[in-house]
Amino acid sequence: MLIVMDAAATSEDVRRVVTTVQNLGLQAHPIPGAQRTAIGVTGNRGAVEAAAFENLPGVAEVIPVSAPYKLVSREAKRENTVVSVGGVPVGGQRIPVVAGPCAIESETQALETGRAVREAGASLYRGGAFKPRTSPYSFQGLGEEGLKILSKVRQETGLPIVTEVLDTETAELVAEHADCLQIGARNMQNFSLLRKVGRIRKPVLLKRGMSATIEELLLSAEYLLAEGNYDVILCERGVRTFADHTRNTLDLSAIPYVQRISHLPIMVDPSHGTGKRQKVLPLSRAAVAVGADGLLIEVHPHPEEALSDGPQALLPDMFSELMRQIRNLAGVVGRSA
Amino acid sequence: MLIVMDAAATSEDVRRVVTTVQNLGLQAHPIPGAQRTAIGVTGNRGAVEAAAFENLPGVAEVIPVSAPYKLVSREAKRENTVVSVGGVPVGGQRIPVVAGPCAIESETQALETGRAVREAGASLYRGGAFKPRTSPYSFQGLGEEGLKILSKVRQETGLPIVTEVLDTETAELVAEHADCLQIGARNMQNFSLLRKVGRIRKPVLLKRGMSATIEELLLSAEYLLAEGNYDVILCERGVRTFADHTRNTLDLSAIPYVQRISHLPIMVDPSHGTGKRQKVLPLSRAAVAVGADGLLIEVHPHPEEALSDGPQALLPDMFSELMRQIRNLAGVVGRSA
Amino acid sequence: MLIVMDAAATSEDVRRVVTTVQNLGLQAHPIPGAQRTAIGVTGNRGAVEAAAFENLPGVAEVIPVSAPYKLVSREAKRENTVVSVGGVPVGGQRIPVVAGPCAIESETQALETGRAVREAGASLYRGGAFKPRTSPYSFQGLGEEGLKILSKVRQETGLPIVTEVLDTETAELVAEHADCLQIGARNMQNFSLLRKVGRIRKPVLLKRGMSATIEELLLSAEYLLAEGNYDVILCERGVRTFADHTRNTLDLSAIPYVQRISHLPIMVDPSHGTGKRQKVLPLSRAAVAVGADGLLIEVHPHPEEALSDGPQALLPDMFSELMRQIRNLAGVVGRSA
Amino acid sequence: MLIVMDAAATSEDVRRVVTTVQNLGLQAHPIPGAQRTAIGVTGNRGAVEAAAFENLPGVAEVIPVSAPYKLVSREAKRENTVVSVGGVPVGGQRIPVVAGPCAIESETQALETGRAVREAGASLYRGGAFKPRTSPYSFQGLGEEGLKILSKVRQETGLPIVTEVLDTETAELVAEHADCLQIGARNMQNFSLLRKVGRIRKPVLLKRGMSATIEELLLSAEYLLAEGNYDVILCERGVRTFADHTRNTLDLSAIPYVQRISHLPIMVDPSHGTGKRQKVLPLSRAAVAVGADGLLIEVHPHPEEALSDGPQALLPDMFSELMRQIRNLAGVVGRSA
Repeated sequence: MLIVMDAAATSEDVRRVVTTVQNLGLQAHPIPGAQRTAIGVTGNRGAVEAAAFENLPGVAEVIPVSAPYKLVSREAKRENTVVSVGGVPVGGQRIPVVAGPCAIESETQALETGRAVREAGASLYRGGAFKPRTSPYSFQGLGEEGLKILSKVRQETGLPIVTEVLDTETAELVAEHADCLQIGARNMQNFSLLRKVGRIRKPVLLKRGMSATIEELLLSAEYLLAEGNYDVILCERGVRTFADHTRNTLDLSAIPYVQRISHLPIMVDPSHGTGKRQKVLPLSRAAVAVGADGLLIEVHPHPEEALSDGPQALLPDMFSELMRQIRNLAGVVGRSA
Repeated sequence: MLIVMDAAATSEDVRRVVTTVQNLGLQAHPIPGAQRTAIGVTGNRGAVEAAAFENLPGVAEVIPVSAPYKLVSREAKRENTVVSVGGVPVGGQRIPVVAGPCAIESETQALETGRAVREAGASLYRGGAFKPRTSPYSFQGLGEEGLKILSKVRQETGLPIVTEVLDTETAELVAEHADCLQIGARNMQNFSLLRKVGRIRKPVLLKRGMSATIEELLLSAEYLLAEGNYDVILCERGVRTFADHTRNTLDLSAIPYVQRISHLPIMVDPSHGTGKRQKVLPLSRAAVAVGADGLLIEVHPHPEEALSDGPQALLPDMFSELMRQIRNLAGVVGRSA
Repeated sequence: MLIVMDAAATSEDVRRVVTTVQNLGLQAHPIPGAQRTAIGVTGNRGAVEAAAFENLPGVAEVIPVSAPYKLVSREAKRENTVVSVGGVPVGGQRIPVVAGPCAIESETQALETGRAVREAGASLYRGGAFKPRTSPYSFQGLGEEGLKILSKVRQETGLPIVTEVLDTETAELVAEHADCLQIGARNMQNFSLLRKVGRIRKPVLLKRGMSATIEELLLSAEYLLAEGNYDVILCERGVRTFADHTRNTLDLSAIPYVQRISHLPIMVDPSHGTGKRQKVLPLSRAAVAVGADGLLIEVHPHPEEALSDGPQALLPDMFSELMRQIRNLAGVVGRSA
Repeated sequence: MLIVMDAAATSEDVRRVVTTVQNLGLQAHPIPGAQRTAIGVTGNRGAVEAAAFENLPGVAEVIPVSAPYKLVSREAKRENTVVSVGGVPVGGQRIPVVAGPCAIESETQALETGRAVREAGASLYRGGAFKPRTSPYSFQGLGEEGLKILSKVRQETGLPIVTEVLDTETAELVAEHADCLQIGARNMQNFSLLRKVGRIRKPVLLKRGMSATIEELLLSAEYLLAEGNYDVILCERGVRTFADHTRNTLDLSAIPYVQRISHLPIMVDPSHGTGKRQKVLPLSRAAVAVGADGLLIEVHPHPEEALSDGPQALLPDMFSELMRQIRNLAGVVGRSA
């Protein structure tokens, strides 16, 4: 249920509604908008009586929500959410590019890449310290050492850090070093991790699962918001299909679809989405053209030596060319990059 | 096998190689390029002796082709193929837009749409006279009457006509009225139809099947070229996956992939690719940005009355807006529209 | 629309209803059942007035059909359809096994296989004279020569013949030699071919398309019935998914689903469904256990020399073992084989 | 790498090899077989010198393993693994059936179901205390209270308990009450959970992810074995495809495929695999016929009141009928149930 407040409602009015909701044993989620505040009500198993709220002062409307997601929906909040990642806005007019290696392998590699992507125009740095690997015998990341290297990269380049959080045990450790916690495709329905990260209150980058519907993606985001973390960025990274010419099939139609029904920003990861270096540039252009709110690009100074996902990493000069093309395109669709 | 001729080879040299191929009971397919001619050899079940050709005058190189497709491959022809559809080049610098209703329903509807799309900047007209329908009880198209209406549309608007050919019986009839024969997704592996259309020698628009790999798409094109019809345009129109927020999942990564391994132009059909009016505009932008050689767009003046696929047809003024945006984007990727 | 007649309705009553339907410009399809006759009405674009029929003598009920398929549905006919293929019933208590090579390669190969499968207990013989091949350069079948060999196989072994019909041009030729016309997965939505075969009135084996839903399969069958051919056998042969350990993913849940909503028999083809010899036996057992009305099995005396699909063909003694296991299983599920 | 010992090797020989492996900084995993012991070597990033082991006493052969999985492969262990779940063998001649409700809702519901399924012949009890739910607003299970109820069910019925473990935090708590820890499809690649459960050393039931390949499933199992937990049961529960007549597409070909390349037992869950009550019985029969090592069946005394997955739960008398049919079938394939 959504309780929409009058444009003229006072903060006292909002507080009163919140208290009334809580007195019924339910949770209230005030979502302030530009014009007016909506209050999401969760925790009810069946229908809640609208009558309990309709006549409270300042209440404009009580909307029973039919969609299974509530807090992430446009019904709950008309305006786009803009998430600030270490000061860089995601979801606004500008299209930030998150760039860096798949995995942090050494301080040298991390810093070299960091300088290169900052120079080319990236606004955020990505790099994995904890890596989810299909095989137990593959390189699993440097762990805490990798996190410390990430902190140095931020210090030296000024780029805020996006890095993956793999489990509840290491979530707080990662949060100490990261500006944005990435939840990977394989963990999109790791509900315990979602709840944990929802309580940490750092911005979250939530990737679509390999065979997740958009409804499932939004419901996983709803887990985060329901815990009180509203700084959620979604990410399309390709889905698994029969098609074998790319590693995954990048589903760009997800972008306008999500943007119509949700207020959350959504990025595109063409590196994982295609798994092939030569496809990253054209699909980055397509992502910007379709309206994506950001890009995630894997860059590695020596991809042939990469411990993880080398074949999809761009060389620094390919990344510069990508940034150049993206900037031109962004202007045409009314944005900047 | 591919026999690549010297840049200095004479037409007499080419003829001699062709005769030698034919004397071995095989087919020769001379493919003239800007610099030099290649001759595809087909019809062999096993390996062919390269020795039979290597020493003929004018032969530069004999390449055993490992890919299952030969004539459609970049190995056979380095330069992009540009197909002329009634004088409109497809595959060149300019990105033609093919627009019109899913099905021809009446002369009034067809002409009204034709005038509207021409005015907005479409270069080709599309409309179905013979419609492949999942149910035997759905509207199957006006048939020959529809073809005659299409001829009138060309006469009145000057736009060349693209229309679907459903079977071998009506292929020649359709060819009398059409400038380009469309082979639909359901018929991509209707090999008898491919052979028939390969012999008709009108340009062909070949759509990717609902669950076809790129290799299968190229092999279906190979059927056309092997019959001697080199004027083939490919088309990505979405594939079938688990994702349920669109009718099909538009696989834009297919565009750069095809362009790397084949010389044939490839278009995108975002109307069928998404099945939803609101997705057509953003995905058309994405298609141009990714490098598509053309767009197929369904336009209907009264979509709510359409006998087929109304929900995905654009209104004429939405189409004008699409053309405006496409033109701006095309410039940024070094093309025009 | 379905018009259900009284159990006591006379054939005169049925005739009167048929005439009334036809006078309205529609088609009537009388479907005799054990207890009573239903008359399917097709050809209407919108709703038909039930009133025109309700008061005719012998009419028990007029049912507006909501499902897009009518004649193939259980609503139209309660009892299972039993199709006689050259005297062998398909859809009854006994589970017929159709066996033979993928392609007819020579008289020797065809007859050798025919004798072996008859001896092992097959009731029908399969073998392709016209082969749909992904590549134009693959063996396309012996054509008419293959059909003549098939006639000899029937003569010598007594087994009725199931063989594929590829196009409308050769449909009648194939029908002269075959007892059952197979429509392959790639042609499931070749609507011109469906209509043609619907008019030929030989039993048809209709295979599910590579990515066809069950509704689409039933609607393709509806094309056949709507032309007056009621002798239709459906066939599950695997669908295309991301899974790469088999050539296709055999969807055995389709069997009980189809049997609940349609009266048509449905077979399983585990040879194409898996593409691997070692999977054919266990999945044949599973097919019988799930309730399939028959099996299609590829058998080749020398699979390593097969011109098509060798890796999935069983050797004759593996086929004997399959028949032995199938017979045991059939008994447990109340059938025989 | 696999080090295969002589049939005549002594336990002293085995110990010596293990020590040699460990002295190189690697892990040794002795896998005793009926005839002889194999020792899996893991922890190496590149190739390990075979020479270091070949000449040790008792070593028959050193096999560099090419498959990405080692410990789960048939190369590592020829004989089938038989896992004992609270005394019930899984992977042997007998086919155990695990039955119970999707979620534990109350002591009454849990016990009523437990008595019913034991009486019908189930050997193990299943029921969720911690439930992974797509929506944060759905019933999430009774948690620890549910676990205590499960302990009572075991006490009263004598049936060992299979229940899902959702995260690392509650893994040990669940292990106190359960005889077998189920890892659900959504957690198949939750590598932290796999490692944790690998260290707990209770039998594990590992379900195939919604779009996991068999290689990925086996690599997830490898995580468990690499931690020292060899009591792993795999489970096919349907994969996500375009097909919409069932909730998932049950991929029964996975069973013989897994059994050929791995020594681990594999069960089938037709309840989740189809999502529809009416399909559970025929697909259970198919699972037994294809060679499954066990079945997971959801049973609920009042499915219409179930808090989770009601539409796929069997009523107790339907389950009795299932057991009856399964027992008959098992005999035919050389097993018992």
